[in-house]
Amino acid sequence: MTWIEDPEFAPDKPFGPQTLPYGVLVTGSGPVIAVRVGRHALPLRGIAGELGPRLAELVSGDSLDPLLAAGRDRWRELRERLTELVAADRAPAGASLVRTDWHTLVLPFAVADYVDFFSSRHHAENVSRIFRRTAEPLPENWSHLPVAYHGRAGTVYVSGTDIHRPSGQRKAAGDLQPAFGPTRRLDFEAEVGFVCGGEPADRVSTSDFAEHVFGLALVNDWSARDIQAWESKPLGPFLAKSFATSVAGWITPLEAFEQARVPTPEPAHALQPYLVEKEPWGLDLRLEVRCNETLLASPRFEHMSWSPAQQLAHMTVNGAPVRPGDLFASGTVSGPEPDQRGCLLELTWGGAEPITLQDGEQRTFLQDGDRVTLSGSAPGPDGSVIGLGEVTGTVLAAARR
Amino acid sequence: MTWIEDPEFAPDKPFGPQTLPYGVLVTGSGPVIAVRVGRHALPLRGIAGELGPRLAELVSGDSLDPLLAAGRDRWRELRERLTELVAADRAPAGASLVRTDWHTLVLPFAVADYVDFFSSRHHAENVSRIFRRTAEPLPENWSHLPVAYHGRAGTVYVSGTDIHRPSGQRKAAGDLQPAFGPTRRLDFEAEVGFVCGGEPADRVSTSDFAEHVFGLALVNDWSARDIQAWESKPLGPFLAKSFATSVAGWITPLEAFEQARVPTPEPAHALQPYLVEKEPWGLDLRLEVRCNETLLASPRFEHMSWSPAQQLAHMTVNGAPVRPGDLFASGTVSGPEPDQRGCLLELTWGGAEPITLQDGEQRTFLQDGDRVTLSGSAPGPDGSVIGLGEVTGTVLAAARR
Repeated sequence: MTWIEDPEFAPDKPFGPQTLPYGVLVTGSGPVIAVRVGRHALPLRGIAGELGPRLAELVSGDSLDPLLAAGRDRWRELRERLTELVAADRAPAGASLVRTDWHTLVLPFAVADYVDFFSSRHHAENVSRIFRRTAEPLPENWSHLPVAYHGRAGTVYVSGTDIHRPSGQRKAAGDLQPAFGPTRRLDFEAEVGFVCGGEPADRVSTSDFAEHVFGLALVNDWSARDIQAWESKPLGPFLAKSFATSVAGWITPLEAFEQARVPTPEPAHALQPYLVEKEPWGLDLRLEVRCNETLLASPRFEHMSWSPAQQLAHMTVNGAPVRPGDLFASGTVSGPEPDQRGCLLELTWGGAEPITLQDGEQRTFLQDGDRVTLSGSAPGPDGSVIGLGEVTGTVLAAARR
Repeated sequence: MTWIEDPEFAPDKPFGPQTLPYGVLVTGSGPVIAVRVGRHALPLRGIAGELGPRLAELVSGDSLDPLLAAGRDRWRELRERLTELVAADRAPAGASLVRTDWHTLVLPFAVADYVDFFSSRHHAENVSRIFRRTAEPLPENWSHLPVAYHGRAGTVYVSGTDIHRPSGQRKAAGDLQPAFGPTRRLDFEAEVGFVCGGEPADRVSTSDFAEHVFGLALVNDWSARDIQAWESKPLGPFLAKSFATSVAGWITPLEAFEQARVPTPEPAHALQPYLVEKEPWGLDLRLEVRCNETLLASPRFEHMSWSPAQQLAHMTVNGAPVRPGDLFASGTVSGPEPDQRGCLLELTWGGAEPITLQDGEQRTFLQDGDRVTLSGSAPGPDGSVIGLGEVTGTVLAAARR
């Protein structure tokens, strides 16, 4: 019997002892690194004496940055030690539990570069059909490489941050001139983010993926579809995405997902050798997307055509090193079924097919006051469940200036 | 008569007392912030006693980051004080001059987000014609907003850094399948970069530009044209650019360019109010692009359709704040004349028209061993010249792995 008395701290619950995600939460004495145990968090500074000086030094600050830089051996060592400590029948010296719902999380690491992929075939095909109305729904390159672009690192916000509706230029098909104002087509995108660490390295092979990825965090890549449609030619999305990207405050270690590894869908043709996986890094992650109280979609990550190991291999194959703090996201997770679509653009087919919320209200795109929440889980060892920290955000009216 | 005995430290020379750019150079005691005076550099840590504690604290480290964050009042104050000190007839206490050609420069600030614009109409039209062979050479949005994308902050390198030829996927028009290997169409892009500072702020008006921009630095946005052509649909360039971006080691303060301000070319139609300038921030900068010893082009920044103030206003109009350390670049500076084209793609018209170097060799794109150097200057007060620090880099063979 563990000393942690919390019914949510159980193997069949997402934040049981098999998960142990890291975050930075604000306590009376400032921000501290903590590990989540059920509904509680265990600040690590307090139990530094139980971790030994080498690990204690990595987790005694107010950011995961030193831990991210420390590399895989230290990540494993810390997780092993914490697994022992949370399973013990007596609390370790200096331990104190705090309620996660009483404390705010802050962004747990400094985002270095942020890259956003586009790796769901279903999403890419749907968006092509909606946006570009092309006969051939996928660009020719799509099945040969994981298409991606760089996003704005400085506007990655932690879950719980309110999101002001952005303003920008838009021009609908019938308009003679572009107009400026708050977006009318504000959307979310349900994605899975990968938080990088370890030694900076380029040309990372798919086999070396785990050396460079510390953990997973859900990402909401907020998008202004009208701004996007107008601005994106020829260099891709810019202001339509750069106003905000929300990321979960709890980062679940990659090591927790060993039982979730699955092959990606069979590719349409042979891949370049640098994209071939010896061991699969597709992941059986089940996501849920809610707007206010309504479950809108249940996308499954196993439908993604490109695994995160392929994404990282691609991102670095040109010699660009991955650095600790780099964050890359999968792209919208959409599956073949209508209730597996990870954004409103797809769920309402470009606004043509409104959806109805539990309260009877209809939505094509997000309204001010709407709260979007992504959650997710994966299979863990011995029938347990691995939780992904939720990412939530409420839409505020456009800022006036 | 100033105490600085250096014939290059004169008003008619680019690095005379009217310029005073900042950099970080490596001395025997490690990296120090210095101001450039002709062929010499004056380390600021040595003269801290002459600057007063408030300024000394900002420039005693090994990075410009604290100075960038300090804001415009401090930038002015420091420049005024240095202007006095370098004009004095006796050396300030603790002053020592070092030769710039004997010391290496390091990246003088931590790049936060890197944004690359596309603001030369001549460049955009030429590229459209070469790449997309479209009847309408410019996308419709181009004249309504300064098109841009985010680049990779982690691969911004200081001038002098060697650049390995990147590898990636490419697929020429006639190829059945994409191939992988070192790029065959390695190019440079001559650009002007703007280094941001001051308080983070969004919705920066064109009038507030100088509050948020510390200085100018030439940028070479290295590009792999074959990778770019294959990967860019629909989200824009990614690996074709992310392997390296070179930036000058000397940052010339924005304040030095007061006499260089000129209106941008008349826009084709009325602009959205947030893009209208009350005072012009177009700039009369004359660039020179050299490959090895050969002058390839002399682009002029006054041909740019969008000023950096319009670019910053656009970049932040959606609520995304600009942060100290943000770097944005103008896009390739190309003018209407063939010898004003800022990249090989244009200079050789997609490789169809090779150029001949001084040694008689021909080039379509860059070969291993080629050294590309950008330099530039602007008119200063009283007929003087304001210099931009050069940015140079040598192409190395593709890394083998």
